[in-house]
Amino acid sequence: MSKPLSSREVRLSRRPARMPEAEDFDLAEVTVAAPEEGQIRVRNVCMSVDPYMRGRMRALKSYIEPFALDEPLEGDAVGIVIDSRHPDFSPGDTVRSNLGWREAWTADAGVATRVDPELAPLPAYLGVMGLTGLTAYVGLLDIAGVKEGETVFVSGAAGAVGSVVCQIARLKGCRVIGSAGSPEKTAWLKELGVDEAIDYKRVDRLSAAVADAAPDGIDVYFDNVGGDHLEVALQHMNDFGRIAACGMISVYNDRVPPAGPRNLINIVAKRLQVRGFIAFDHLDRSEDFMRDMSRWLAEGRVHSRQTVVEGIERAPEAFIGLFSGENIGKMVVRLAEEKTVQDRVLQGRG
Amino acid sequence: MSKPLSSREVRLSRRPARMPEAEDFDLAEVTVAAPEEGQIRVRNVCMSVDPYMRGRMRALKSYIEPFALDEPLEGDAVGIVIDSRHPDFSPGDTVRSNLGWREAWTADAGVATRVDPELAPLPAYLGVMGLTGLTAYVGLLDIAGVKEGETVFVSGAAGAVGSVVCQIARLKGCRVIGSAGSPEKTAWLKELGVDEAIDYKRVDRLSAAVADAAPDGIDVYFDNVGGDHLEVALQHMNDFGRIAACGMISVYNDRVPPAGPRNLINIVAKRLQVRGFIAFDHLDRSEDFMRDMSRWLAEGRVHSRQTVVEGIERAPEAFIGLFSGENIGKMVVRLAEEKTVQDRVLQGRG
Repeated sequence: MSKPLSSREVRLSRRPARMPEAEDFDLAEVTVAAPEEGQIRVRNVCMSVDPYMRGRMRALKSYIEPFALDEPLEGDAVGIVIDSRHPDFSPGDTVRSNLGWREAWTADAGVATRVDPELAPLPAYLGVMGLTGLTAYVGLLDIAGVKEGETVFVSGAAGAVGSVVCQIARLKGCRVIGSAGSPEKTAWLKELGVDEAIDYKRVDRLSAAVADAAPDGIDVYFDNVGGDHLEVALQHMNDFGRIAACGMISVYNDRVPPAGPRNLINIVAKRLQVRGFIAFDHLDRSEDFMRDMSRWLAEGRVHSRQTVVEGIERAPEAFIGLFSGENIGKMVVRLAEEKTVQDRVLQGRG
Repeated sequence: MSKPLSSREVRLSRRPARMPEAEDFDLAEVTVAAPEEGQIRVRNVCMSVDPYMRGRMRALKSYIEPFALDEPLEGDAVGIVIDSRHPDFSPGDTVRSNLGWREAWTADAGVATRVDPELAPLPAYLGVMGLTGLTAYVGLLDIAGVKEGETVFVSGAAGAVGSVVCQIARLKGCRVIGSAGSPEKTAWLKELGVDEAIDYKRVDRLSAAVADAAPDGIDVYFDNVGGDHLEVALQHMNDFGRIAACGMISVYNDRVPPAGPRNLINIVAKRLQVRGFIAFDHLDRSEDFMRDMSRWLAEGRVHSRQTVVEGIERAPEAFIGLFSGENIGKMVVRLAEEKTVQDRVLQGRG
């Protein structure tokens, strides 16, 4: 098939002031042209919403350009090639791209990377087998340089990155303390083998809870939250501890961010190393990561879980839900049924 | 001579609540016994007061034990051996020890390290040739890993550590921006070859001043101050920049430290590395440091300056003065005239 195709896409209609709201987004319908030479046309099966996207909604340039207003948003997505005018891709191939927030797209084939549906289900390529998993892998192993027998504290532990960090830390022979925001989340963490799961919303003092859970102190803190979690971690870090600074979701929605921890002097006194990192800088580790993670998944040593929201029209709601902790594991928006798309491709209907 | 010797010493009489006060210290007179086998007796010529000592005045254990109440304080000192019952030391030898805050002492010879008075004047061994100099050297070269052509921002730049950092950075071919708290200090920084010297007390907005001084951003920040200086540095750091966290004098006197910078998210977004360090952990670099620094001093490529206070009874005043920035370069307390002590040793009067 090579006729135009209709696709809905989500655009940023205004920059969120604080917590993003439904009114900050528009749903538009566009026509996706047939591919030209060197291009492919793809129907997205699922897309990712991630906390880091909040940063791109500000007008300020950070490590990537801000999202443009009235243009479709971008983000990780996995889809199925429905037409191809590039020799490396055929209809039915499953691919990952950065062209999420839309049902279908046509673009140069170079924007797509093939993913293997035999190795893991497609949504896993947005999470445990995707950038999220790579973030956990690189952050814990390379940035924090975790070693067997160490105590690892993870905030946002039931989130997409945190839950993978916890499991890799366990695989590496660490004692793992995870903090999350509901009994359901901490119950899941216990299932994953986390040694101590703290429901930070139900403890009187997070600091006391962490002290109890880590009587010998923390060697590695994997920070997804910032704010009070970072302060507590600094208080309980051991000398020469390492902090992998992955994200600080507690401050993303503040127009003026709150003041930071009062106890940064611990960085000096305890000779800590705090290192910020972003998975995009570490794509050279993708091969190692995919090899290890696919084996761990196959052996049942790492488990992934998604919170699935159905339909492109609910993508803003899924994104907003990240900041109130609606997700357990990876938050994913399902845009189409994989089987339906494949059937249509087989029938030549795309 | 082997008769008892009188010495005055400064003791901590109570733990300072906020800014230390004269009343927190006592001056006591004690008798320093003649050395036994394996010991030496030393008359201190000069002693160091350093901001880090404030931390030891708290009851809390940090990286070293807190100072005991009603015991003599400790700290770097340089003195002259007046009696020796150890084969490695003879009367007249010049030594460095951690037994400052007292005019004389007797102890096992192992606490002393010989220093060469030909290489540098004795007070220099408390500063540019001492732990202060090693702190600057290790922090800039090893912790921050500074490279030629980078832009280095130094807070507390006219202080004991900061002034050495500025000069080593210049020697390594860096552009150097120093912040200090008086016109006299910034004038000295310009003499030292610092490219841009900011009097932070006289600029409207430190952030704007740093932005003007570092139009291409900061690659390395050497932090002696913390607080607002750290916040401004985080704002202007380049991607993959490094922060050597040496001290945070701005918070040492607070019972409850002030909240930290609001913009720690820059650690993630800019992939910064923040590393706390303490020179004691890096004594393996002493030999390299002494070789390089003595050559730089001899060649006139590094200059040192001291603020000298006379007399053990004024040591508390010298220490307190650190927190209001009374010192330019290293704050040193002179306890005796080197020549007078040597003359007495020659005359067998110690």
